[in-house]
Amino acid sequence: MDQTVSASCLSHQHVAFAGGLTLECGFHLAPVEVAYRTYGTLSPRNDNAILICHALTGDQYVAETHPLTGKPGWWSRLVGPGLPIETDRFFVICINVLGGCMGSTGPRSLRECPDGGREPWGTDFPPITIRDMVQAQKLLIDHLGITKLFAVLGGSMGGMQVLQWAATFPEMVFAAIPIATSPFHSAQNIAFNEVSRQAIFADPQWHGGRYWEHDAIPARGLAVARMMAHITYLSEEALNRKFGRRVRKAPQGNGANPGSLFGEMFEVESYLRHQGSTFVRRFDANSYLTITRAMDYFDLGADYEGDLSRPFRGTRTRFCIISFSSDWLFPTSQARLLARALNRVAANVSFVEIESDKGHDAFLLDEPDLDRTIRGFVAGAAEHARIA
Amino acid sequence: MDQTVSASCLSHQHVAFAGGLTLECGFHLAPVEVAYRTYGTLSPRNDNAILICHALTGDQYVAETHPLTGKPGWWSRLVGPGLPIETDRFFVICINVLGGCMGSTGPRSLRECPDGGREPWGTDFPPITIRDMVQAQKLLIDHLGITKLFAVLGGSMGGMQVLQWAATFPEMVFAAIPIATSPFHSAQNIAFNEVSRQAIFADPQWHGGRYWEHDAIPARGLAVARMMAHITYLSEEALNRKFGRRVRKAPQGNGANPGSLFGEMFEVESYLRHQGSTFVRRFDANSYLTITRAMDYFDLGADYEGDLSRPFRGTRTRFCIISFSSDWLFPTSQARLLARALNRVAANVSFVEIESDKGHDAFLLDEPDLDRTIRGFVAGAAEHARIA
Repeated sequence: MDQTVSASCLSHQHVAFAGGLTLECGFHLAPVEVAYRTYGTLSPRNDNAILICHALTGDQYVAETHPLTGKPGWWSRLVGPGLPIETDRFFVICINVLGGCMGSTGPRSLRECPDGGREPWGTDFPPITIRDMVQAQKLLIDHLGITKLFAVLGGSMGGMQVLQWAATFPEMVFAAIPIATSPFHSAQNIAFNEVSRQAIFADPQWHGGRYWEHDAIPARGLAVARMMAHITYLSEEALNRKFGRRVRKAPQGNGANPGSLFGEMFEVESYLRHQGSTFVRRFDANSYLTITRAMDYFDLGADYEGDLSRPFRGTRTRFCIISFSSDWLFPTSQARLLARALNRVAANVSFVEIESDKGHDAFLLDEPDLDRTIRGFVAGAAEHARIA
Repeated sequence: MDQTVSASCLSHQHVAFAGGLTLECGFHLAPVEVAYRTYGTLSPRNDNAILICHALTGDQYVAETHPLTGKPGWWSRLVGPGLPIETDRFFVICINVLGGCMGSTGPRSLRECPDGGREPWGTDFPPITIRDMVQAQKLLIDHLGITKLFAVLGGSMGGMQVLQWAATFPEMVFAAIPIATSPFHSAQNIAFNEVSRQAIFADPQWHGGRYWEHDAIPARGLAVARMMAHITYLSEEALNRKFGRRVRKAPQGNGANPGSLFGEMFEVESYLRHQGSTFVRRFDANSYLTITRAMDYFDLGADYEGDLSRPFRGTRTRFCIISFSSDWLFPTSQARLLARALNRVAANVSFVEIESDKGHDAFLLDEPDLDRTIRGFVAGAAEHARIA
């Protein structure tokens, strides 16, 4: 398939940990490879590191041109010299999550077979959790000689990792900025993820997850999954504003648009199809399955009899929780549960709900209030941390 | 496929109109068959008829056991002797929509081929609109000798038909009860419908829409479509209440659940899979495509330069608009646009937002406030209409 590009041809920063990692499910995964990018310089005191955690379909190319799509880094608006996350002051690290498909160990990685050969893990890749992702990141942070991260931040699934970092390694996180996220994945969000997965399983090119043997990818199923997810990332207002009921000429003769009235299609249909078809060129279906499941498993209070404040008891981390008013995938109500749990243990918490009609995706879009909030909180925290 | 049951073996009430119907797209469809069910008796003055319009995947079996599923009629809670819509007082009619798959002319109906044979319309079935559905219903209402309907009511797409009836045949509608609906289909709703369609197109059993030639149905694609739609019918609260994050043992060895953690799956996943798999046994994929498009085209103000009040200028119909507070598919804000448009032309309008956490599906579920509202409005309107 000329649509697929092997991640192995990319020049990531990259470390292989031969000792591997015992996953939450009990499986020992070894080796564990961790692909990442860094920006800026680690200070002599190793005290200026900021870890940025990416979302479901993001990756480590946070502040530079993406090697596959040629698009700007997904947070290049926020990360760089003079920007809210200043790379001339901080050492910024972004790591492809465990289970991903941009160089870190995931379902596309090769494993040893009983017959001595090597083949991709595929659906045999063990189930992983957000905690496993954070443990893999910890291997790299240790490797880089960093004993304390000045800040950990990220949106959506990235925010889940931020919370997991603060819960699992509280002494290593000076400041935490979970954005557009939740301390647990809701039934509605699990439901949407399950539809995504069923769309992939329904694709004839899925081949039971061993699509590489057929030189195929389940492109249509993965595109359907992406299209649906994309709707949940936007708000009704944003869709009305961007597309409303505007129509355009429908493509003819491709069989994908039978029964169109007057040969037209809605702009929003065309937009979603484009979103679906570009996504499948850069993302691996088995990774999508692995990572959506990791999100579904996420429930920070579950190990503490449902008490969400217990993992944060005694924490000295400074939190800045950010939500968006029109985000219905990770609504403010869920962020508020987190804020209350942190308040119950007298944690240092700021909580900002940003007025925006852009929906969940607001954390990735031009939202000056987000930039201002991050800039202000980071600057204040740096003062407290006495970073030069 | 033993899953499919031909609608032709069912004993509908049924009329074929040889003259057919010129559709909004310009195509003349003939004959037009209209399948329906009635309950109660038409009064000597023909003044006690209530037309109930069904939603996307509903049908005419509103108040009796469904012949395919064996389940109670979809509104048997509301329609019957002594119930809010009293069948010992009113003559209740429910009609399978044009484009449907329960006996009215639709993509599964046979057409004459150029070679003299007959085959299903399939994807060659012309695009239809909500107005076309109403025109087909009008054929039957005329045929039954009814010159004025006492009331027209329905939820969701049924509500669109109610509005179209009141706009196109204002003198024929004494009272109109549009429920959980909108005067236009929003960009978000079009977007969800488009994902449904793409899921069907992606199914290998779709066969370009000629699945009957392969003795197949695009069951997996249609199931994915239904699963996604089902999420939009519920609210986040309802999903949390019904399922939360509860898990159950996952089925083994069917290949549909690779990578599950600890062999478990979430209850909500199991529920959705069940919804998907039962749906495909009773519904035709080409009908699903045809009807979702009809919903997408719906925009009552479009023929009046976007002025939603103009189709109702001078109307004497009494309206009772009902919305549900947790319905995010057809939110109260859209019902309010309709109420305002009717107010601008001094129409007789009641507008009730019912507090419910059940989401869009509330109109189909046990919601005592809905029953009370309908009972009260129907009783009052019957007094004004001087129905015995």
